[in-house]
Amino acid sequence: MKYELYYWPSIQGRGEFIRLALEDAGAAYVDVARRPKGMQAMMRMMESQAVKHRPFAPPFLRAGELLIAQTALILHWLAPRLGLAPKNEAARLWLHEQQLTISDWLVEVHDTHHPIGSGLYYEEQKPESERRARDFRENRLPKFMDYFEGLERGKAITYVELSLFQMVAGLRYAFPRTMQALEPQYPKLVALHERVAARPRLAKYLSSKRRIAFNPQGIFRHYPELDQ
Amino acid sequence: MKYELYYWPSIQGRGEFIRLALEDAGAAYVDVARRPKGMQAMMRMMESQAVKHRPFAPPFLRAGELLIAQTALILHWLAPRLGLAPKNEAARLWLHEQQLTISDWLVEVHDTHHPIGSGLYYEEQKPESERRARDFRENRLPKFMDYFEGLERGKAITYVELSLFQMVAGLRYAFPRTMQALEPQYPKLVALHERVAARPRLAKYLSSKRRIAFNPQGIFRHYPELDQ
Repeated sequence: MKYELYYWPSIQGRGEFIRLALEDAGAAYVDVARRPKGMQAMMRMMESQAVKHRPFAPPFLRAGELLIAQTALILHWLAPRLGLAPKNEAARLWLHEQQLTISDWLVEVHDTHHPIGSGLYYEEQKPESERRARDFRENRLPKFMDYFEGLERGKAITYVELSLFQMVAGLRYAFPRTMQALEPQYPKLVALHERVAARPRLAKYLSSKRRIAFNPQGIFRHYPELDQ
Repeated sequence: MKYELYYWPSIQGRGEFIRLALEDAGAAYVDVARRPKGMQAMMRMMESQAVKHRPFAPPFLRAGELLIAQTALILHWLAPRLGLAPKNEAARLWLHEQQLTISDWLVEVHDTHHPIGSGLYYEEQKPESERRARDFRENRLPKFMDYFEGLERGKAITYVELSLFQMVAGLRYAFPRTMQALEPQYPKLVALHERVAARPRLAKYLSSKRRIAFNPQGIFRHYPELDQ
């Protein structure tokens, strides 16, 4: 099976959670929108009434006849096929639940720099971003970190661990001062980040050109004024 | 199977999407936190490290040994058991994808009155709410309505249709002027709302005391200044 991933070509964003799973598994996939004319192909899928199960937004994945969107759902479906999730239902439900909480967390990261409107520029919502980012740093970020630090994890690496790696990596990029202050309280999450980063296929991916660098168009953005 | 639903006792909120499914199916369930000492029971589930698969937030559902959280996931698991979703995988994935998009939509409704911090009062973030609500009314709300209006639906009522009923009902409460102006463009969603409301068990539920009224503590809130 050769997978087709559709996501914005210039940012990690939500697509990165899928890329990490595909790369860690060494799966064959095409990152469609990063190819010539790929953006048009992606937009067509979202705009054409003829597309069955038309997605609301990227990322979405095509696997043969199947077309699915929503990051957490894609991973729920894909990961057992990649060896990144067990096949039994109870274990899969629990992973999916955690991934959905990661999705909620990620929305809150995004909204630190876009509290007023996703269609507006950051520069059009700076004072609001400063207030929202402060609430995020002081209340929401520790709440999510506490939760994931406190959960018991098995020895196996699943897509949820890959996603937690990505959260730590992204938060370090966006909020370096905040994370430096917080990390001593979260030794398990920090160790998990290191462990995932050292996985051979992922280490190779992370230092390749396929890994788009964090940048100020993504979900994780570094604005020093939001990281006081 | 007698289900236990855990959710805040004084608002519809996210719990209502589960309640609608349980009520429509005539399922036996306990709305735990609305019973004496139920709130303590709910808080204990979230705070105790001894709880396996401890939820991050309500709603969550206990069904025998299983404990699951996240509204869309609960419905994904529950609905086929209630006759509100088919059992085949492709159909279930598509319903789940739509429900996850409804969850995203609901977060954006919430953030119209809480753009800065969920722990702050509305009164502490009024100017920001007015800006965000304007963006929601003008851009995001039509985008979500267009999407769901444009999807083809089968004849069967599933939990996704119940959830779309709830979105229309809540939006009418929160944004009556906006919805009055928009609704003529969305005949299918309006008709779906009527059709769901007329289902015998649901009609009975909606006029019962079990249906908590919309109110200014919920996710859908009516502030005239946000509905210009």
